[in-house]
Amino acid sequence: MIYLDCASTSLIKPISVSDAVCNAMSGNFGNPGRGSGSSSLESSRLLLDARKNIGALFSIKSPDNVILKSSVTESLNTLMIGLLKKGDHVISSVMEHNSVLRPLERLRQNGIITYDLLGADDFGRIKIEEIRNLEKKETKLIVLTHASNLCGTVQDITSARQVLRNKDIFIAIDAAQTAGYIPVNINELSADAIAFTGHKGLLGPQGTGGFIVNDRLDSEMVPVFTGGTGSDSSSLSHPMFLPDKYEAGTANIPGIAGLSAGVNHILEEGLDSILSKSRDLMIYFLDELERFSYINLHGLNCNEGRIPCFSLTVNDLDPSFVSYVLDNEFGITTRSGLHCAPLAHRVFGTEISGSLRISFNHMTNEGDIDALFSAFSMLKGVSHD
Amino acid sequence: MIYLDCASTSLIKPISVSDAVCNAMSGNFGNPGRGSGSSSLESSRLLLDARKNIGALFSIKSPDNVILKSSVTESLNTLMIGLLKKGDHVISSVMEHNSVLRPLERLRQNGIITYDLLGADDFGRIKIEEIRNLEKKETKLIVLTHASNLCGTVQDITSARQVLRNKDIFIAIDAAQTAGYIPVNINELSADAIAFTGHKGLLGPQGTGGFIVNDRLDSEMVPVFTGGTGSDSSSLSHPMFLPDKYEAGTANIPGIAGLSAGVNHILEEGLDSILSKSRDLMIYFLDELERFSYINLHGLNCNEGRIPCFSLTVNDLDPSFVSYVLDNEFGITTRSGLHCAPLAHRVFGTEISGSLRISFNHMTNEGDIDALFSAFSMLKGVSHD
Repeated sequence: MIYLDCASTSLIKPISVSDAVCNAMSGNFGNPGRGSGSSSLESSRLLLDARKNIGALFSIKSPDNVILKSSVTESLNTLMIGLLKKGDHVISSVMEHNSVLRPLERLRQNGIITYDLLGADDFGRIKIEEIRNLEKKETKLIVLTHASNLCGTVQDITSARQVLRNKDIFIAIDAAQTAGYIPVNINELSADAIAFTGHKGLLGPQGTGGFIVNDRLDSEMVPVFTGGTGSDSSSLSHPMFLPDKYEAGTANIPGIAGLSAGVNHILEEGLDSILSKSRDLMIYFLDELERFSYINLHGLNCNEGRIPCFSLTVNDLDPSFVSYVLDNEFGITTRSGLHCAPLAHRVFGTEISGSLRISFNHMTNEGDIDALFSAFSMLKGVSHD
Repeated sequence: MIYLDCASTSLIKPISVSDAVCNAMSGNFGNPGRGSGSSSLESSRLLLDARKNIGALFSIKSPDNVILKSSVTESLNTLMIGLLKKGDHVISSVMEHNSVLRPLERLRQNGIITYDLLGADDFGRIKIEEIRNLEKKETKLIVLTHASNLCGTVQDITSARQVLRNKDIFIAIDAAQTAGYIPVNINELSADAIAFTGHKGLLGPQGTGGFIVNDRLDSEMVPVFTGGTGSDSSSLSHPMFLPDKYEAGTANIPGIAGLSAGVNHILEEGLDSILSKSRDLMIYFLDELERFSYINLHGLNCNEGRIPCFSLTVNDLDPSFVSYVLDNEFGITTRSGLHCAPLAHRVFGTEISGSLRISFNHMTNEGDIDALFSAFSMLKGVSHD
């Protein structure tokens, strides 16, 4: 099987990741922060190591500011619902995933917030400068994707703060598609929070994710979900210190063990090496693609300013049909459809039939891409049958 | 190591559970409901099987009414926050875990709800009949623990509906401590929702849990967290059909694979067999306990109407000290402290120093209990040093 759907999930993990998950199922990891038994302490150490690894990746110093959740979706919801109050205004963009758009829309429908969306150019680049026109005195938050899950365009996040008149407006980044692919540095991005998923570029298991939050943003947030934390147990009020404030309930120890191993793999390999490998693969992919006049690329036609995630349409063929044939005839996994980013599709005019998404990572090899284009060559015949 | 903290987490899992988790990390399980690739379909099948297994355990017919979340805490929050509106009144009890009490307290502090708590007798039995005094026309929900995580007392949930004047009030059960231990039948309990955790009696991994909800309750609930579901992707509004309504974001496939295997283990062994084994162990435990006049049992002094979870104090010794010595000197894991149930401790007068909790399951053996009491014998010496 050839897997070219890494933007959905990094199906093939480093062996250290599955080893860590299996090891955490071996009966040595109890409930962290509950009791003083050795198995409980073992889990507490594992959690701290995970926070340190993740903190190192995102350049945040205090491990307590690394919040572990079950997904980037839960993280983005926690950030937005936890921060926004009645009357607040939010600026986001048309390039967002439904994990940003749907919570915003729900908050709007409930009469809590209003929001405006920045547009995007023909290559899927968010028009950051439009912030000038949209910023209001009620604007509390800017929430933006770091790279589009549809077309792979990396966004110029750094400019957001520069464009803002009120520099105190919070900036939260959805790094679902970039963490583990390119540097995501909370300071360089001038962000207050970064939400991430564990099972894509970070090479961890599904069911993991979280967010990094600085103290300034945290101080204005409340937790959405509360419950047992193993701390302040005598109080009916949920503790307001990090990380417990946002982590009610038992932690996903096997998942976090795997996530920590995935992040460790990235730190050890180094983002420079990962970037270099994926850049070479993107050049190879784009060179091959040029030979196919009947395949349209929606997004940046270069290897700069993007991650290895490409949105394609194949002439008059339905993308779902192409994806189906690639899977069933050639054993190549891709993704078709609307990719949970309905407004981004409108930028490219693919909102009706969607597109074929090809996405890979630094562990993909040229042979996989050869197989794809070899299949594409034969696919032309299919369309003429 | 001897493990007697099963009420925290079932540290030792059936081999089929860790096998299922490791198998789900093998690279064959993609993102369910996203794309038509074989790895995606494999995950969709796994999810459906898990829902069927869990549905069978709780006696709910439609797998779609089985909602998979990351913990019982997240499930209880989703149920309460998703249902309750401004002005609603809730009845709960002093025997609840903080996963019920803290969300209720937060909703109260936010001016959304009011709530009243049923008391408990000296054995930790909730005074269900007090519902008569507490029920108001604003009462929307009764939320009760099925068994105390402190003293193991199983509650007479069935009576709640009988006592209610308004039979339409919703009843939600926290089955964190009972699922996998004793029958938890949504119909027999006359409940509308049952929240469960995956990593205790159900023998699955940490980071799993969920809730069962009937259509009547679901129809009055809204989702708290929204986002990508792989369904209705063109819409900015979150889908309102089950299970997607409450399951935004990528599912925890390895965790759910393990949970499904754990539930399958229980279904194959049969609850009758599990009940019989744990009853024998409880009789053995209580017989041994009688020999120790300086150990106080807080809760039911019999094997009926309880699960194998016992709250003890050892004369004048601090429970944390006892737990520490048991772990460090004898390799026996127990739990000390307040067990995230602050009001339940007041019932037994253990709200200051907490108690020593001994909890086991049907996979525990008599030798483990012998080791505990052997340690207790020597502990008496420790207290006199």
